[in-house]
Amino acid sequence: MGAGGRAGGIVALAGGVGAARFLDGLSRLIDPARLTVVVNTGDDAEIHGLPVSPDLDTVVYTMAGLADPSRGWGRRGDTFRCLESLGTLGGETWFQLGDGDLATHLYRGDRLRQGASLSQVTGEIATALGVRARILPMSDQRVRTRVRTGRGELDFQTYFARRRAQDSVSGVRFSGLRRARPATGVIEAIERAGAVVVCPSNPIISIGPILAVPGIRRALGKTRARIAAVSPIVGGRAVKGPAARMMRSLGLRVSALGVAELYRDFLDLFVLDRVDRRQAAGIERLGMRAVVADTMMTDRRKKIALARTVLEALEAPR
Amino acid sequence: MGAGGRAGGIVALAGGVGAARFLDGLSRLIDPARLTVVVNTGDDAEIHGLPVSPDLDTVVYTMAGLADPSRGWGRRGDTFRCLESLGTLGGETWFQLGDGDLATHLYRGDRLRQGASLSQVTGEIATALGVRARILPMSDQRVRTRVRTGRGELDFQTYFARRRAQDSVSGVRFSGLRRARPATGVIEAIERAGAVVVCPSNPIISIGPILAVPGIRRALGKTRARIAAVSPIVGGRAVKGPAARMMRSLGLRVSALGVAELYRDFLDLFVLDRVDRRQAAGIERLGMRAVVADTMMTDRRKKIALARTVLEALEAPR
Repeated sequence: MGAGGRAGGIVALAGGVGAARFLDGLSRLIDPARLTVVVNTGDDAEIHGLPVSPDLDTVVYTMAGLADPSRGWGRRGDTFRCLESLGTLGGETWFQLGDGDLATHLYRGDRLRQGASLSQVTGEIATALGVRARILPMSDQRVRTRVRTGRGELDFQTYFARRRAQDSVSGVRFSGLRRARPATGVIEAIERAGAVVVCPSNPIISIGPILAVPGIRRALGKTRARIAAVSPIVGGRAVKGPAARMMRSLGLRVSALGVAELYRDFLDLFVLDRVDRRQAAGIERLGMRAVVADTMMTDRRKKIALARTVLEALEAPR
Repeated sequence: MGAGGRAGGIVALAGGVGAARFLDGLSRLIDPARLTVVVNTGDDAEIHGLPVSPDLDTVVYTMAGLADPSRGWGRRGDTFRCLESLGTLGGETWFQLGDGDLATHLYRGDRLRQGASLSQVTGEIATALGVRARILPMSDQRVRTRVRTGRGELDFQTYFARRRAQDSVSGVRFSGLRRARPATGVIEAIERAGAVVVCPSNPIISIGPILAVPGIRRALGKTRARIAAVSPIVGGRAVKGPAARMMRSLGLRVSALGVAELYRDFLDLFVLDRVDRRQAAGIERLGMRAVVADTMMTDRRKKIALARTVLEALEAPR
């Protein structure tokens, strides 16, 4: 595989757990070696000085079959002895770190200090864990999501993990964009892709940062690949996480249609849940095809069925 | 307790496991609140970016009743899930870090980044773990033991943990001494002590760095407290670790007498093992009293008995 990406492959834009579930289904239908996943790093953080990349790890762990199926973060069956001992010492324990998960952050920290890029390290971790898809951070430069709340501007993990997304959000910005470039291979993968899928992730804080990295949104607008998105909003609610509340407080429509509007400049088709089928006409008026499906990935069968629907829609004659 | 130390208290100079065993016995005979332990930090290291202080931790864990009794490092019953996962990722695993032990290093790192001194952090850890003795690093500045070997100069943990002390040693130096000062309270504790004990630790790389911190050796020479040392060399061998080999390759006499010579400028009495009793006369010719005892601390009873012998000798009329 060259740096130019896999011609005719599939590129997925991904946040955390919703994306990971979708990709888990997708990679059972296609050869994972054809898949390039571009992952949000806006909610990366330094926790106890360690570089933590929650979305990268959720995607890698899930595709490696190591993810905890219920929590949506960390490793299945992990222990928390370090965190418990840290609590005994009076240390900060609001960011959950399993003992096995910690190794990923120690390894990443070691390699970054040695001068490796985040892409390189991510590739090493994915390979070591048996993941055949190419997992890329959106950027090797540091971009950080910052959330404007009633308590002032918070870094993402303070807002999300420490304060459990309880604050009302009046704005979101991504610091570091000026120096950020797409990670090596991201633009090439989009240009050469057979299809692109925007995974069912929070459009503001998961897909938003990826689209904000200079060059990525333009590449999506220019690529000849068809681009589909799967709605993370079902029945006016986020399947997981604070997406609905965030969209509402930012004055956005909290609906499948509202998400489709955010991507209208580059989407060819939009997959929405059956419960939202009445929004299909409005979505098609945005200039894209609307595909109604069961998007609730509550088990493996449903994950695969959703991935199949998306693939078939992408391959259907225009 | 003021910064000036406990008048009439006992000050111990300590390295790792030998010292910790002795202190464990001592603190069953005297109120631990009377004890100030000044600990070597020359073999501190950054492991995966975390500040690790092996001797401080061995002393604290031992006095907290948490130490692993056989290994001499780490915590009893600790798990190694993080280290195992790190191995899976291809990371470096030569420095053994238990999951619970890791918490100490994460906590120390957090607090040092927040601007706390190593003394402060050590006090916090000791207090959180229920240790009543005052545990002080020899210095809050960074002093690092470097070992000259056939493979060039190695930092201490590379020599000791990574290469398992297999290289022949032609020299030892302590970097950072120029900027190092004794940690707050060290000099005052020595000046005001009722007695000082040099624990049975490696004279070159455990006690050596402490004595090399500017001001400490002079304070030992000036204090009115009586000063005793317990020999870490028994029958021409180190009870534990590379002391004998190091002393030999540095051209020193590998014997109780050889150790006594290294401390002759400040010692009042020297405790040597029964098997070395014939060296007592030579030691007394150095100008100190020689006390013969069973120094092999193979169980709790023998630890306490040795501590009692040392205390009684320190209190005996001159």
